[in-house]
Amino acid sequence: MINHSSSDFASNPFTVTVSRGPIIESRHQVIAVISDAKGKLVRSWGDVRNAVYLRSAIKPLQAIPLVETGAADALDVTEQELSLACASHNGEVAHVDAVSEWLKRIGLGINDLECGTHWPKYEAAALELAGAGLAPSAAHNNCSGKHSGFLSTAVYMKENTQGYIHLDHPVQQRIVKVLEDFTDLDLSRAPIGTDGCSIPTIAIPLDKAALAMARFADPSKLEAGRASACHRIQTAVAKFPHMIAGTDRLCTALDGAAHGKVIAKVGAEAVYLAALPELGLGIALKALDGADRAAEVALGALLEDLGVVTEDIHKSADPYFHPILRNRNDIVVGRLEAVFD
Amino acid sequence: MINHSSSDFASNPFTVTVSRGPIIESRHQVIAVISDAKGKLVRSWGDVRNAVYLRSAIKPLQAIPLVETGAADALDVTEQELSLACASHNGEVAHVDAVSEWLKRIGLGINDLECGTHWPKYEAAALELAGAGLAPSAAHNNCSGKHSGFLSTAVYMKENTQGYIHLDHPVQQRIVKVLEDFTDLDLSRAPIGTDGCSIPTIAIPLDKAALAMARFADPSKLEAGRASACHRIQTAVAKFPHMIAGTDRLCTALDGAAHGKVIAKVGAEAVYLAALPELGLGIALKALDGADRAAEVALGALLEDLGVVTEDIHKSADPYFHPILRNRNDIVVGRLEAVFD
Repeated sequence: MINHSSSDFASNPFTVTVSRGPIIESRHQVIAVISDAKGKLVRSWGDVRNAVYLRSAIKPLQAIPLVETGAADALDVTEQELSLACASHNGEVAHVDAVSEWLKRIGLGINDLECGTHWPKYEAAALELAGAGLAPSAAHNNCSGKHSGFLSTAVYMKENTQGYIHLDHPVQQRIVKVLEDFTDLDLSRAPIGTDGCSIPTIAIPLDKAALAMARFADPSKLEAGRASACHRIQTAVAKFPHMIAGTDRLCTALDGAAHGKVIAKVGAEAVYLAALPELGLGIALKALDGADRAAEVALGALLEDLGVVTEDIHKSADPYFHPILRNRNDIVVGRLEAVFD
Repeated sequence: MINHSSSDFASNPFTVTVSRGPIIESRHQVIAVISDAKGKLVRSWGDVRNAVYLRSAIKPLQAIPLVETGAADALDVTEQELSLACASHNGEVAHVDAVSEWLKRIGLGINDLECGTHWPKYEAAALELAGAGLAPSAAHNNCSGKHSGFLSTAVYMKENTQGYIHLDHPVQQRIVKVLEDFTDLDLSRAPIGTDGCSIPTIAIPLDKAALAMARFADPSKLEAGRASACHRIQTAVAKFPHMIAGTDRLCTALDGAAHGKVIAKVGAEAVYLAALPELGLGIALKALDGADRAAEVALGALLEDLGVVTEDIHKSADPYFHPILRNRNDIVVGRLEAVFD
């Protein structure tokens, strides 16, 4: 629980501490904001007008064109695949098989993915692959589901399926338009970096990111086709949480146990975005140093503070929200906690 | 190069920035101090009186009893093994074989190691092991060399070889005594945590850690046997740098290229300690958030500022001191830099 001050708008980041034995060993600073769909900030910590690369945390919004163009219906994209389109997945067999089958069904293959290749970050998946004498393909890339969604939209729209990772390709331009609509920003002069999977990543002030997630959570004021896309994506993630991340991952543990009350997605460099459909709120946070361990604890503290952590969520997500550190002999040596300075 | 202020004793931590495209994506705060062997602080950044767990960065000092008890000579401990006693190694075949042979020679085996087991953190070593259908043993633990040194000392001193990881065992008590001598501190009431490999890790003010490293670098005022132990450990690391870490690791790249001018050792949670024998100086630093990537860049900045980075060191260590971030398609997407606020 965050012991937040009486002011609704604390100006300081909050802290996630890493203790070992009797003292704090390391500490992380987190900026965070909770917004409603009109842009009213319910709470914030730190300078949340800072532009932040949202990285993979924005994937649920990047999946909107897949649905609202009509591509998902025309190409029989399943709910499982829709969840995978929002994923930073573990590269487990279930993820890789689903990507391969999806690409095959739309007449393409793994070689059409432009995300690059890496060994699964999930150790067990990497070791299993190596143990079978195999090497990873682009389908193992944690972003391969999102890229399959991009390719599906390009196929349906009869666009070039090559170069879809570049900012001037219609696939990326549609995403820019979605982000502009959801944030009320003109992004034509926003800072743009290159993401791990080579698509553009656009820096957006954290308060506007929370606004975007609130509108995704409560799309009642949006155009009907877009509102429907938001609902379908939420439902898909809640029904197939394993697809959005995988074994031993917070997104999967939380989004599954929340049964649609929370749709949360991690991004690289310690970003977390979450939509709370029942409350019509959006959450955006970043640990300033880019440490994922701090972002997970921070998300838990915000959700607990908002009173949305059910028994089911506690059971599934507490290992991430209140991590206990164990050493190589499985001895408890420390813990992480969210605290106010 | 650090643009340090005109004051020798800046009170603020310095920053390591992580940029992506046109903006800074994440940032780390680093406390650091450079001391001579008399305890004069040459420079410092941040509150360096803070007690910090030195973790594995202190291993070169933890190896002193192995030499000064006479155990190393009596048990024919090689220079390669002495470097391994200071190591957080990659678990590559060379490391694991050396540990196994060392233990066998002193009449013990891998099962006598009390450090626990983990898959090598070096991805290539883990994948190679899995590819051969094997699993790791305690010899793969990155601390197995240090533990072999502990066991050697216990064997030579005719002490119990079980329980050597506990604070009250003579192996650990000798290390406490070394640390008290090198820091001028009474450590009987110091905060003590449990390290990853289950031995005690003692929190020591960062300025005293730098003093300890300066005395290790310039042991001329120490008792002859201890001074000789410091020199032997320095020589062993400089001659067998692969043993102290391994492939693609800063400690190996730097300590090898420095030819004895720098003995640097990383510790978990972003600690770096370094001894500069020619200058008689010690360096201690910690990124407050525990990010190793920041500690490496910070160490480079301090060494460059001190003018000790030779052409050889530049060639070997620049990938760690001035890292370029590349994505999954090998595209340059960002960089890390040490800067003063």
